[in-house]
Amino acid sequence: MEKDIKQLLESAENIALFGHKNPDGDCIGSLLGFGKLLEKMGKRVSYFTPTLPSRIYDFLPEIKKISSVFDYKNYDLLVFLDFSEMTRIDSFYNGDTKYFDEHQVIVIDHHVYKDNKKNRKVITDDTAMSACEIIFEHTYKRWPDLYDAQIATCLYLGLTTDSGNFRYDEDHKRILTNALRLVELGANKKRIVDNAFRKKSFAGVKMMQLMFKRLQKKGELIYTRYTDKDLKKLNIDREEADFGQIIIQDIDEAKVTIIFRNDEENKKCCMSLRSKHADVQKIAKSFGGGGHMHAAGCTVIRSGSFQQQVDEISTKIASMM
Amino acid sequence: MEKDIKQLLESAENIALFGHKNPDGDCIGSLLGFGKLLEKMGKRVSYFTPTLPSRIYDFLPEIKKISSVFDYKNYDLLVFLDFSEMTRIDSFYNGDTKYFDEHQVIVIDHHVYKDNKKNRKVITDDTAMSACEIIFEHTYKRWPDLYDAQIATCLYLGLTTDSGNFRYDEDHKRILTNALRLVELGANKKRIVDNAFRKKSFAGVKMMQLMFKRLQKKGELIYTRYTDKDLKKLNIDREEADFGQIIIQDIDEAKVTIIFRNDEENKKCCMSLRSKHADVQKIAKSFGGGGHMHAAGCTVIRSGSFQQQVDEISTKIASMM
Repeated sequence: MEKDIKQLLESAENIALFGHKNPDGDCIGSLLGFGKLLEKMGKRVSYFTPTLPSRIYDFLPEIKKISSVFDYKNYDLLVFLDFSEMTRIDSFYNGDTKYFDEHQVIVIDHHVYKDNKKNRKVITDDTAMSACEIIFEHTYKRWPDLYDAQIATCLYLGLTTDSGNFRYDEDHKRILTNALRLVELGANKKRIVDNAFRKKSFAGVKMMQLMFKRLQKKGELIYTRYTDKDLKKLNIDREEADFGQIIIQDIDEAKVTIIFRNDEENKKCCMSLRSKHADVQKIAKSFGGGGHMHAAGCTVIRSGSFQQQVDEISTKIASMM
Repeated sequence: MEKDIKQLLESAENIALFGHKNPDGDCIGSLLGFGKLLEKMGKRVSYFTPTLPSRIYDFLPEIKKISSVFDYKNYDLLVFLDFSEMTRIDSFYNGDTKYFDEHQVIVIDHHVYKDNKKNRKVITDDTAMSACEIIFEHTYKRWPDLYDAQIATCLYLGLTTDSGNFRYDEDHKRILTNALRLVELGANKKRIVDNAFRKKSFAGVKMMQLMFKRLQKKGELIYTRYTDKDLKKLNIDREEADFGQIIIQDIDEAKVTIIFRNDEENKKCCMSLRSKHADVQKIAKSFGGGGHMHAAGCTVIRSGSFQQQVDEISTKIASMM
């Protein structure tokens, strides 16, 4: 960690931590882990994400600290965790980013960094599997004595969720070294595994069944679809529906997989693309979306029947491959 | 490793390694990893399992060394890997265990050891998650220079498959320490993850759909069923059908989960029981089976229609809980 960032953290008294909308395990682990560390440094810390965490994460002791309403107080320091693009917190500013441009911001993120704003200090590393890993590597060296089991548990959460529990990582030594150290520091690995990876609901499995039933193949494209109505009917949230995608994206015959979702409220057709080798970012971009090479997403306006639209788009994408 | 075992291994020239029937990743990794180590010590090594490995493991370079027909040559030494009970290799002796009682046997296993035969030397540790871990811990200290990437890869396979890729382990420091060391020794983690954990077939996912569709609840018992005909129809093997069980066993509402299989060839109804907290070994024992507290199995003679039998047994088990 560079000196100026360390000084900013040490001199601030009131700090607001931000995660992105639809916060995942890495985002939530970053907030609660880094937040606890700052609290142990004597800071007053507030936690914000534009949408609240999935109930999957209710097992984390301090999860209720996170608010989905930003209070616009005059914080000494804002910290963006697991994101850098303002669109990821757009519901917090309604078009006018003035507050966020005028306050000192620190970004800690493992996505490619593009912004160039003067009020920002940045710790990014897109070779890291998770923001939690970056936080751990940068802060443990500086403040080893502040570490406790709770901080280690939160950071371990992000390390495992973003790597699919050691399935997607590329720097194996790095992630295993960090995982081992966090466990040695008291990370409750079992609790995280049980809650983030081994907690399926009967309804969640029925949702998978629905997604698998609708599975279709067009050449090397394999896709399925679901609607928000399906979620409501089974009383589960989107993060639970993601379990189905985790299975589908591993199908060997597929070069690309897509989960289509009918977003009824916003009248949109959302696509979540995955691949093991092909570049799905390109495909997503051609529909105005973005992401990474192996995981990308895009959204188009709904037209015609949902199923018809899925048929049309899948045919188009299959022909692009 | 005790001196006498080390001496037995060093003095033997022709060694036969045995794995159990329906060999899993730990069994196969033990055979190929330990076998390669012995080969590098200059031994002639033969590899036997009563049934051949699932095609899931075809990615391992030396998998074809394993034979399902035992040749009864006069080996200097037999090594049982990942099992100790003779029933696990019963098709090799047809009731007469004389050959196996008269030859020197070494057992390396992570299940509770019960036998008391004089011709055996035993390395068991039922606190280890896998036989591969025991092999690694005992042999790396003795013969570090013999280790290469291939041996490390084979042993890493068992370490991850038996732990469900770091999901079921209890001694987290131990498994992460061993995993890190094996990766440092060149274990091809990515290859194992891609093949053992990320390789689903379209047919395999359709099999899951079938199992999820037939999912039923009786109190805190959740169960499903499939027949060998289902497997044939989809052209998949039992190990691929296990993917469905991995999901079902994690359902939160279930105290106990059971997968019923109609074994048409042997006219049997096979039950595979799982639990996160309850003791399923007890239930399995009451049907003449056995296993561990959280994973057990049993088999009964088929009678009536398969579905009817499943209904009856599930009602009985639900009332026992």
